[in-house]
Amino acid sequence: MALLRGTYKLASLPAVCRCLHLSPVARQKSWNILKLNHVALATADLDKTTALYRDILGIKTSEPVAQPEHGVYTVFVELENTKLELLLPHGEKSPIKGFLEKNKTGGMHHICLEVDNIKAAMADLKSHKIRMLSEEPRTGAHGKPVVFLHPKDCGGVLVELEEA
Amino acid sequence: MALLRGTYKLASLPAVCRCLHLSPVARQKSWNILKLNHVALATADLDKTTALYRDILGIKTSEPVAQPEHGVYTVFVELENTKLELLLPHGEKSPIKGFLEKNKTGGMHHICLEVDNIKAAMADLKSHKIRMLSEEPRTGAHGKPVVFLHPKDCGGVLVELEEA
Repeated sequence: MALLRGTYKLASLPAVCRCLHLSPVARQKSWNILKLNHVALATADLDKTTALYRDILGIKTSEPVAQPEHGVYTVFVELENTKLELLLPHGEKSPIKGFLEKNKTGGMHHICLEVDNIKAAMADLKSHKIRMLSEEPRTGAHGKPVVFLHPKDCGGVLVELEEA
Repeated sequence: MALLRGTYKLASLPAVCRCLHLSPVARQKSWNILKLNHVALATADLDKTTALYRDILGIKTSEPVAQPEHGVYTVFVELENTKLELLLPHGEKSPIKGFLEKNKTGGMHHICLEVDNIKAAMADLKSHKIRMLSEEPRTGAHGKPVVFLHPKDCGGVLVELEEA
């Protein structure tokens, strides 16, 4: 490919993209992404993965908590600027059961971005044809409204939005 | 399983774990994990994924940069507290080529934790039987020493350490 070292061939971008690329517009928005709330990692062995982060990497971890209404046990790995959320399936209908069948040991499950107005975000995303996994926000593991965006509309990544 | 709601059955933990669990020891360490530097997301369409974060989610993104020595193009999505690193393969020997063959659209590729002393970290991790993907630190995409930990020793997650 005739790509310049250190740059990206602008002509390969579609016209609409080139336009936005050259003239980034500060679009008036009624909602904003604030920060990365957490990265969720599914694991088949919560004790062992917690021990890795706590005892070997030396990071503060929370106590394990069963969250039967969400079908998971959670442990939070508390980094200085954000947290990792370790997830172990709880019960037969756990939402991470299928993921662990495909990824036996575990793996990266989703990222969670904080948003200041989840309802406004959902309406706006819908207008951009981004699909969501529920029609309305649900109450997440932190007791706040959350919604998951469809991985197929987010480059293969499951993205959770949580209202701050 | 006889698990109490909201708690984790301590007796199910192995003895060594129970001991550490009940008496968390502030182990003297010559190195520390500082924070989450970035979450890397591989994508099959860098323009489209960049447009999602920049134009739809309204987050500041960097210009795309070709990094032929690392076999990737990168775009950074600059969140308030950390960043997402979008990766597109560059060249035939790209380290993310195999990943994208298994995950056609893209997906979560690795997390990068900052460390204050990478050589001390590597020696300590080796003593804990955590395997690394190189014997010595390499120079990463940010020009700093990095090493990748084996996913099989990290609950299925590829973990990069970068010296701050």
